[in-house]
Amino acid sequence: MADSNMVVASSRIRLARNLNGYPFPSRLKNDKQAKEIIRAVSSAINKVDDFRLYYMDGISEEEALNLVENHLVSPLLLKRPHHSAAVINRNRNVSIMINEEDHLREQCIEKGFALREAYAVMSDKDNTIARSIQFAYDEELGYLTACPTNLGTGLRASVMLFLPALTISDFMPRVIRSATRLGLTVRGMYGEGSRAEGYMYQLSNEVTLGVTEEEILSQVEQVVKKVSEMELSERRRLASGERALHIKDTCLRAYGILTNCALISGEEFEKLCADLKLGVCLGYFQAQSIGWIDDLIIKMKPSNITMLSGHKLSPQERDGFRAGYIQKSIKDMLRG
Amino acid sequence: MADSNMVVASSRIRLARNLNGYPFPSRLKNDKQAKEIIRAVSSAINKVDDFRLYYMDGISEEEALNLVENHLVSPLLLKRPHHSAAVINRNRNVSIMINEEDHLREQCIEKGFALREAYAVMSDKDNTIARSIQFAYDEELGYLTACPTNLGTGLRASVMLFLPALTISDFMPRVIRSATRLGLTVRGMYGEGSRAEGYMYQLSNEVTLGVTEEEILSQVEQVVKKVSEMELSERRRLASGERALHIKDTCLRAYGILTNCALISGEEFEKLCADLKLGVCLGYFQAQSIGWIDDLIIKMKPSNITMLSGHKLSPQERDGFRAGYIQKSIKDMLRG
Repeated sequence: MADSNMVVASSRIRLARNLNGYPFPSRLKNDKQAKEIIRAVSSAINKVDDFRLYYMDGISEEEALNLVENHLVSPLLLKRPHHSAAVINRNRNVSIMINEEDHLREQCIEKGFALREAYAVMSDKDNTIARSIQFAYDEELGYLTACPTNLGTGLRASVMLFLPALTISDFMPRVIRSATRLGLTVRGMYGEGSRAEGYMYQLSNEVTLGVTEEEILSQVEQVVKKVSEMELSERRRLASGERALHIKDTCLRAYGILTNCALISGEEFEKLCADLKLGVCLGYFQAQSIGWIDDLIIKMKPSNITMLSGHKLSPQERDGFRAGYIQKSIKDMLRG
Repeated sequence: MADSNMVVASSRIRLARNLNGYPFPSRLKNDKQAKEIIRAVSSAINKVDDFRLYYMDGISEEEALNLVENHLVSPLLLKRPHHSAAVINRNRNVSIMINEEDHLREQCIEKGFALREAYAVMSDKDNTIARSIQFAYDEELGYLTACPTNLGTGLRASVMLFLPALTISDFMPRVIRSATRLGLTVRGMYGEGSRAEGYMYQLSNEVTLGVTEEEILSQVEQVVKKVSEMELSERRRLASGERALHIKDTCLRAYGILTNCALISGEEFEKLCADLKLGVCLGYFQAQSIGWIDDLIIKMKPSNITMLSGHKLSPQERDGFRAGYIQKSIKDMLRG
């Protein structure tokens, strides 16, 4: 497999857009205005594609949780359900949140290192919408957004990086400082301020104003390549260093527990999955990629378990279902 | 397999004897007296059997540790190596310590519930020795011993019990009180005062004076049967109770870690073995007995690893050797 797929889990493009003639979402005067925006956006996008519209006040709590756990909508979107909605395509790789911080938050996520592909998809949808809707745009400032940090391109290009070796060897503070100096941000996987869970970090551009989309994509790509090289080199160093046996031990035990348990919480499962991924990266397990482990993590979120099992389970039943489900998946995918 | 083999790990007979005309070991005047006793005992026993004599000041530290770890001599015997010795048979089920607390501490250990068999073996050896040596014996008191708690028969009949269910369900304090009332003692496996490790308990007679050997054996047997029934009944209750899934989870994880690790300390290994044995007892793993797990625990003691590997290893190398060795053994023996 390509080396970059052992580091870059996914690539995400996000565009912030607003409609001319309406206040930003937090200042909308009434439900009527909010619904007008929702209808305008959904009819614009539905002209060309197989999108489905979800009103946040028209779905169950379980469905809402499911959208959040699959990273298709943000928790913020659920804060004012009477005002907000999302249109999501059948593949579930494109989602447009309506009346979150901005009128439109358009997002496309692709697996692996695929910023250009994601940008092409998102840009295409954005152009489609722009044919029906007039975006708030200023010749000098570019796209106008609720928060000035998104002004200009409204583009956030981010990649999700799996950086176990740089984390274990305590290089992350240095990586984060260097990225910051280049106008990029590195954060833990659950967004701003949250600490890195499972060795996962989100790297994205900080600056959106005074640069072109092309410049943003190039810069993020360059830094991702550099960080990936550092990570891969540090993995080689770790795999032959004095801590190698302890790291191998941790990875093997994670496999042992994941394939031999009767109950496992989501938190423990995700922690052990990180060790499993590390084991694949260091060659202790044979696998085609680490992406399927990330998919399994999403699949084992509470709301997805509810869907898989066909009904709502108690927390203990869920831990039991998870234990049974992952055992077979992991044994099938990994050959130790 | 017989139910009792799922509870009784081993049976042990110990006879305390002393020679006429010599002070007790702690009061021996000089090395000469001690050596006289050693020679007398070893020549008496070697007349009939394939015993080997070990002078405690004639073996390496490694060999001494090996004898202790295999429960063939006590740590006390090593305290005054110039005075002490042991004769041990080829099978290593009979060992006679010379100049420990008493001049002779004769012990026979048999696997499973086999007190009568162990007593028959030990009694036969004792008679052999008595043909060459005059034991200190009083018509009224019986065999004279250094400590009055061994006076009379000098017999300690003990069984090693695996009592996970009674431990988990917190019945052990009650079991221990009942045994005490009947003149028996229950202690953790590493002897007096030590807490139970790995759910293992030693049950033995407290009283040696004023009772016959037959009475001692019968009473210990009766109590062992009673405690075994309680344990087996409590196992059935646990296996179908509300904690069943958590207990199963613990047992499965123990198997997962034991068969998937690169390093494991002796302490963690023994702890997980207890869970593995519990898993066999509750039917989560298919195995012929639990005795082989106890054998594996002994086999993985540091001094036995030195013998298996052919040279002395560092603690980390030993943990690595242990991890590799047990993986195959356990996978071969257990079918989950």
